[in-house]
This record gives sequence, structure tokens and C-alpha cells, in this order.
Amino acid sequence: MDRAQLNQRLPEVVSTLVQSVKSYAHLHHLNRVFLPSREAAVQIVQKLRELAFPGYFGQLGLTTSNLPFRVGQNVMELSDLLFDQVRCCLRYRAQIPDASEEGVSEHAEFDSEAAAIVSKFLDRIPAVRELLAADVQVAFESDPAAENTDETIFCYPGLFAITVQRMAHELYEQDVPLLPRMMSEHAHSVTGIDIHPGAKLGRGFFIDHGTGVVIGETTVIGDHVKIYQGVTLGAIAPAYGQYLRGQKRHPTIEDNVTIYAGATILGGDTVIGKGSVIGGNVFITSSVPAMNQVSAEQPRLKYRARGPKKKPAEGEVILDFQI
Amino acid sequence: MDRAQLNQRLPEVVSTLVQSVKSYAHLHHLNRVFLPSREAAVQIVQKLRELAFPGYFGQLGLTTSNLPFRVGQNVMELSDLLFDQVRCCLRYRAQIPDASEEGVSEHAEFDSEAAAIVSKFLDRIPAVRELLAADVQVAFESDPAAENTDETIFCYPGLFAITVQRMAHELYEQDVPLLPRMMSEHAHSVTGIDIHPGAKLGRGFFIDHGTGVVIGETTVIGDHVKIYQGVTLGAIAPAYGQYLRGQKRHPTIEDNVTIYAGATILGGDTVIGKGSVIGGNVFITSSVPAMNQVSAEQPRLKYRARGPKKKPAEGEVILDFQI
Amino acid sequence: MDRAQLNQRLPEVVSTLVQSVKSYAHLHHLNRVFLPSREAAVQIVQKLRELAFPGYFGQLGLTTSNLPFRVGQNVMELSDLLFDQVRCCLRYRAQIPDASEEGVSEHAEFDSEAAAIVSKFLDRIPAVRELLAADVQVAFESDPAAENTDETIFCYPGLFAITVQRMAHELYEQDVPLLPRMMSEHAHSVTGIDIHPGAKLGRGFFIDHGTGVVIGETTVIGDHVKIYQGVTLGAIAPAYGQYLRGQKRHPTIEDNVTIYAGATILGGDTVIGKGSVIGGNVFITSSVPAMNQVSAEQPRLKYRARGPKKKPAEGEVILDFQI
Repeated sequence: MDRAQLNQRLPEVVSTLVQSVKSYAHLHHLNRVFLPSREAAVQIVQKLRELAFPGYFGQLGLTTSNLPFRVGQNVMELSDLLFDQVRCCLRYRAQIPDASEEGVSEHAEFDSEAAAIVSKFLDRIPAVRELLAADVQVAFESDPAAENTDETIFCYPGLFAITVQRMAHELYEQDVPLLPRMMSEHAHSVTGIDIHPGAKLGRGFFIDHGTGVVIGETTVIGDHVKIYQGVTLGAIAPAYGQYLRGQKRHPTIEDNVTIYAGATILGGDTVIGKGSVIGGNVFITSSVPAMNQVSAEQPRLKYRARGPKKKPAEGEVILDFQI
Repeated sequence: MDRAQLNQRLPEVVSTLVQSVKSYAHLHHLNRVFLPSREAAVQIVQKLRELAFPGYFGQLGLTTSNLPFRVGQNVMELSDLLFDQVRCCLRYRAQIPDASEEGVSEHAEFDSEAAAIVSKFLDRIPAVRELLAADVQVAFESDPAAENTDETIFCYPGLFAITVQRMAHELYEQDVPLLPRMMSEHAHSVTGIDIHPGAKLGRGFFIDHGTGVVIGETTVIGDHVKIYQGVTLGAIAPAYGQYLRGQKRHPTIEDNVTIYAGATILGGDTVIGKGSVIGGNVFITSSVPAMNQVSAEQPRLKYRARGPKKKPAEGEVILDFQI
Repeated sequence: MDRAQLNQRLPEVVSTLVQSVKSYAHLHHLNRVFLPSREAAVQIVQKLRELAFPGYFGQLGLTTSNLPFRVGQNVMELSDLLFDQVRCCLRYRAQIPDASEEGVSEHAEFDSEAAAIVSKFLDRIPAVRELLAADVQVAFESDPAAENTDETIFCYPGLFAITVQRMAHELYEQDVPLLPRMMSEHAHSVTGIDIHPGAKLGRGFFIDHGTGVVIGETTVIGDHVKIYQGVTLGAIAPAYGQYLRGQKRHPTIEDNVTIYAGATILGGDTVIGKGSVIGGNVFITSSVPAMNQVSAEQPRLKYRARGPKKKPAEGEVILDFQI
């Protein structure tokens, strides 16, 4: 086959693919309302991060005198972006066909609902900033590797993921579909930290390193909780998950709990009591009383002679691990 | 030293670096055939995602009437991108010097091989879409946090990683070097899910959250398997890995198996039997019979008095974890 | 509320936010020296990667004849980028107000310090390349899935993370604030591998897959060490972390050690002796003698009858895992 022959085959390929598209209704988004845009969700996250930590991200040279103008510009742009995306999400939920097939003006109800949601959301930002102030302080105090609070704002993926979740949670609380999850999935992709927008996070929450952390939708976390990379606060999976929709499926972590790397805590009735400490790589599906330390038993040491590492003969395989 | 003095030193720095480049032959790609482009691999992934789920990604406003034109445009661009990159990979394997040193026309054999591979690949897309239709359905049914199938297509990193792997696997099966791995490494970077293009995935495969999942080259996975974040389906490392090239080194997971967060299953002879469930954080290097649940023993609870958290005196260190 | 009403509310929102910004001094960066730029840090990483592996990344078609010009161009651009960012970091540490409020010329001491640091850094690149040559060789030899060394350079996230860390470590050793951590956090975001710039890495270091790996600031790693995804080399967290600043808090891993997926090794006094092998998902807070294999006890198998998976009756929930 040469390239010309490949090109000649393309119409046939296209026609088969069009058939394939029509065969699986739940894989296409055809003749339907516009979906929210992932790019816009990312822009919203960036503008919120700039508002949360002014002067660290975005344009350089913030001063007391230009602060109101910079914040004003950001809020105007953010308000427009949010209005468009929230309206889009509301229309999406109502399955309104897109504007090319029907007039936009008929759906003014979504305009007013979107405006009200955005207005309420913007009013919540100062309260979110108050929570973030405690998060930044705790991140600095908890980590001996942090030189100052600037470094935690600038470099700590945990703080970024918490910032995005706290903002997305405000939209989740107002029952905006899709957009909160798109925001938190952006943070997940950047940081490896997956916090569902539905989770309730207390004051002064610290996630160190964070890659692999999963915090499920109905998790409730108290104040001054610290968790490390690879910690799962998850659900016991049912055979058919959809039957658990809306139920509390994820654990409750009370105040002043520390959970070390790789621990897995599952179940909606599981409560980790105040001040308890969960050791690394522990797997827990039942409650832990307050002020306890839970750790897996120390592994049995197996002593075995290991010869010096040398290149084995052709075909010989020396395993690095005795099984 | 001032900046001018720094600039005066640069010729010396360059000359030392050029020497360094010449000293390590396996660190440079000099006077050799063009390598495939990572940017092109990412574009290929994006176009395939648009073909897999039309209307969700890329241009807005897909309708029944514009569907054939949109698909047609995508397929033409995809075909060109794939042809160039596949040809590049074939020439790379044959170590053909690049065009600036030798005429391109002499290597027409790679043109026809690349055209045949691309043609066969395009024909496979509908079959891949059929598999993805089952993946989407299972993701929705398995996760109580999913509102609808749209959300799984739009937001679920596991579905993205599976989509890229199923496409890359088709190129791997046609023995295309480098490109399949570049595609799957892009998905790994975006999602934290590392599925080698060589792995064989069954129907209705679901990965929840997914950060830290590793699925090795010779893994075989049956139908309706669910795995959670941090699961490794890996190899027992030999002292010299290259002696195991081509052998089955990774486990076999039979139908209807569920593997919870952080479990590690190693070895080419390890088979997890039908319908079994592997608990979180378990480390397994031998087979598990069908219809069993494997879990690590519950950790022994250590009760110890923990005083209230207070700021220690200067220099005093209170560890959060008793060792 | 309609959109016009939303817009009318914005001045009030802005004014509340400006108040909020003024209330939390540690969340804003106002009237202060310019911060280093994350975009510039990413560009520095890209240029260093091109210098480390010429011909693999960046412009195509590197030949023996154009090598000096390409390297020269890269070094000049890199030198300018580094000079600006290092000077910025030094001024940041000294808390110099930004140029718009005070003359730049008064701070010439940072110019000469930055020039000296960049000059010394550029001189270190050949030594770093020598270490990377061993890393590439070991990555290829250790992984049966690697077809050749090119594939490890092109596709292996572990090698990318190690490359960035070895470069950032040189800046850390010269006591440059912020920039080294920004570079390593970029690598963390791309790869899920979090190696603090302060860690000391030996020759021929290999990280396979790597998502979730965490290597703390005061870790010391010997030669020919292999680690897998999800491994933590971390600290025992104190109740108030800042009291441990500057102390050795992370383990020492001696030569020829292999650490399997998900193992957690904590503590500054913990030493894993030469040639030892640490099994997957083990949690260790004390030293291991040389030439030993440590593994967790095999999990107790719980056999229980599991009925065939079927859709439960409305409202019935069948858990996938017996608790």
C-alpha cells in the first residue's frame, strides 16, 4: 500500500466511523446543548488562585495602590467566565438543545439562575480565603522542609488541591452540575490529589506531597487534620455502585487526626476519633476510638544470604526477590 | 563576578559541554534519523479521543448533519499525523540517517509499511469504540459519585487512560516502535495511571481515581474487572531485567475480579481467579483461587495515651508517631 | 437576579475582596520584590533536559557539525534565564522592594552573586551528565520492557524526575532559595515523582513507573539503588514540624538496595543496609542490616463463598468486600 492508496481508503473509513458513532448513543454528544469547556474551567481555577493569593501568580508587581484595579479586573473576568459556564451546566442538566437549532432567548430562566449562583459564589470567596489562611499557616508549621509560608503557596501541590476543592465545593453546595468536578479533576491531573468537590474539609487542613491521595464525595474531615501521600478516604464498593448514590459512603475524620502515607480508610460508618494517628499502609474498615495510634504489626524479617550482584550467565535469571 | 564576566565564560562552558556530549554516545541522538515527536503523539491522542467520544472534546456543536464532515476532517488529519509518525518510528528502528544527509526517496519501503499500518489501525477504531462503550457503562454503574455517563467521559481519568491504552495497544500489536509508549506515557503524565501499551484489557474495565496504578506489559485482564488507585500489576524484578525480555512477567486477572486501593500483585505466573476480591494494600506474589476474598490481617491496635497537642518548648520534639 | 444585576454587584464584591486581601498578610505578596517565575523555571528545566540529552528534545536534526552552535545557543539562553531567576530569588530572600518603588542599580551585590552562582552551576553540568549516563544505562538494564536506551530517555518519567533533581540539587547546594523547589515541583507535577532538591542521590539510580514516589530533603541514597512506584523515603512527623528544620529526618539507603512498590521507610536514623531488598507495601521505621530481605507476612487468605454477580433488587446493596 502507498500513501495515495491510504488516502483513497479514507472515505470508507469515515463512513464506517459515522456508523459507529450512531451505534453507541452514550458515547456521543450529538444535537445537544453545549457542554461546559475544560479550558474555561482551567481559566476559572487560575483566576481564583490569583484572588486567593494575590501577587504570587499572574501579573507581577502588585502594590497597595494597584490592588483594587487588579482585583477589579480579575473579578469582572471571573464573573463573565463563571456566568457562561454555570449557565452552560444548568442548560446541560435540563438537556436544552443548542442555540443553532433553537433560539437562546427562550431560556432566560437559566440566565437568572446562573447570575444568582455566581453572585452568591463571589460573596463566599472571603470566607474561603479565611480558611486558606489557616491552611497556609499549618502547612508551614507542619513541614520542616518549608522555609516560609511563601514557599507553601508557591510550591506545595497539597495547598493547590485544597484551594481548588474549597472553591469547587462552594459551587457543589449550590448544586452546579459538572463544573465543580471539572475544576477538581484539573487539580487532580496537576497534583495527583483527587478530592471530590463534595467532601467537607475542616480548618487548617494539610496534605503533604499528596500524590495518590483520594478523598471521596461524602468524606467529612475535622479541624487540624494532616494526611500524607497515597492516603485513601474511600468507599466499600458495592457490586452495583449506583444503588449507593446519595448515601454517606466515605469516612469521618475527627479533629487533630494524622494519617500517614498509604493508609486506606474505607466506609461511611468508619469514624477516626479525635487526636488519633493512623500509621502508614494500614487498611481500615472500622472505627478507631479517640487518642489512639493504629499501626500494622511490624513485618517479620526474613534473613537470607544474598550473593553479590553479578551479571548472570546467558539465560540465567536471578530474581531480586525470594518468593 | 559580574554579568559581563559570566558572558565571557560562556564559550569555555560551551566547549566543555560539546566535549561532554561527545563522551557519552548513548545520551545524544546525533547524525541519526529523526525521532518521533512528543507533540505529534499528543495531537494523535487528542484526535483519537475526539473520534472515540464525538461532541465531548474539540469543536462545539456537533449535529447529525455536520457529523460526517467533522469525522472526515478529523480522520484526514489523523491519518496524516499517524503516517508521518509511524514512518518516523520505522525509520528509527532501522537506524536510517536523517534526510539532510541522505535522500528520502530511497526509503520508500517505510512509506508503504507505514501506509499499511495506518490503514489497518483506522479500520480497528470502531472495534475499540465498542469496547469503550462497555467501559463507559461500567464506570457509571460502578461509581455512586457519577451522575451520568457524560460525567465519566468528561471527567474520569481512568477512562482517559483506558481509551489511550486501547488505541496505543492497536499500534503495539502492529509492532510500531516508540509511538505507542509515547502515547501511553502522555496519559500517564496526565492521569498518574501507567498502563503499558502491551497489556491485554478485557471488556468493561473500570479504574477508579487511578493515581499510581501500574499495569505491566504482559498483564492479561479479563472482563468486568475493577481496580482502584495505587494498584500495581507488576513483575518480580530480576537482578538483570533484560534477561526477561519477551517473557510473561506480569499477572493474569480473570473475569469479575475487584482489586482495592494499593494492592500489589506481582509475577507472570500469578493468576487471580474469577470473581475474587483483593483487599487494599495487600502484597501478593502467588495465585489466588476463584471466588475468594484476600485481605491482610487486621492491624493490631496499639492503645497509648496521647496528650493534647500543644506547642512544645523550644528545642523539644514531640513525634506524632510512636516508634 | 439577571446578568445586569450581577454586574452591578461587582464593585461591592471587589471592595470586600480588597478588604479580605488586606486582612491576611501571609496570603498576599504586596509591595515586595518580584518573585521568580514558574514559567521561567519550566523553561530552565526544558533547556537543561536538551543539554542533558542532545537531539532527543527540542529542535530536530542535530549533527556533529551543528552541535557546537546548538549547544552555544542553548547555553546563552539558559545563562540569561538562570541569571534573572537566581537574582530574583536572592533579592526575594533579602526582601528587597521591587524596582518600581526603588532603583534597581542599588542592588548590584545580587548581580555579582547571581553571576557567580550561574557560572559555577554551568561548570557542574558535565559532571551531572556523567551521572545521568549511568542512570540511563541502569534504567535500560533493569527494565525488560525497555527496548533500548533511547526509549528510557524518551519515555521514562523516572529518568526525567532524576534529571531535574540532579540539576536542581546543584542550585540547592549553592543555597539558591525557591528556584530548586520550583524545578522539582514541575517534575513532580509531570511525573508524580516528588524528590526534594536536597536529597543526595548516588550513581546509577533507577525509579520504575514512579507515580507516588516521595524522597525527602535529607535522604541519602547510595549507588545502584532501584525503587518502584509509591515508595516513600520520609520523615516521622513531629507535632510541630518546624522544630526539626535542618536535622536529618529522612532515611539512608545504602548501595545496591531495591525497594518494591508502596514501601514506606521513615526516619532520619533508619538505615537500609547494603544489598538489602524491601518488599512491597512494607512500613519500616527502624534500620535493616545489610544483605537482608524484608517482607510483610503473607496475608491470611479468607475463603468465603461469593455468589455470582447479579444485579441486586431495587434498594438491595451487595458489598463487594466483606467487612
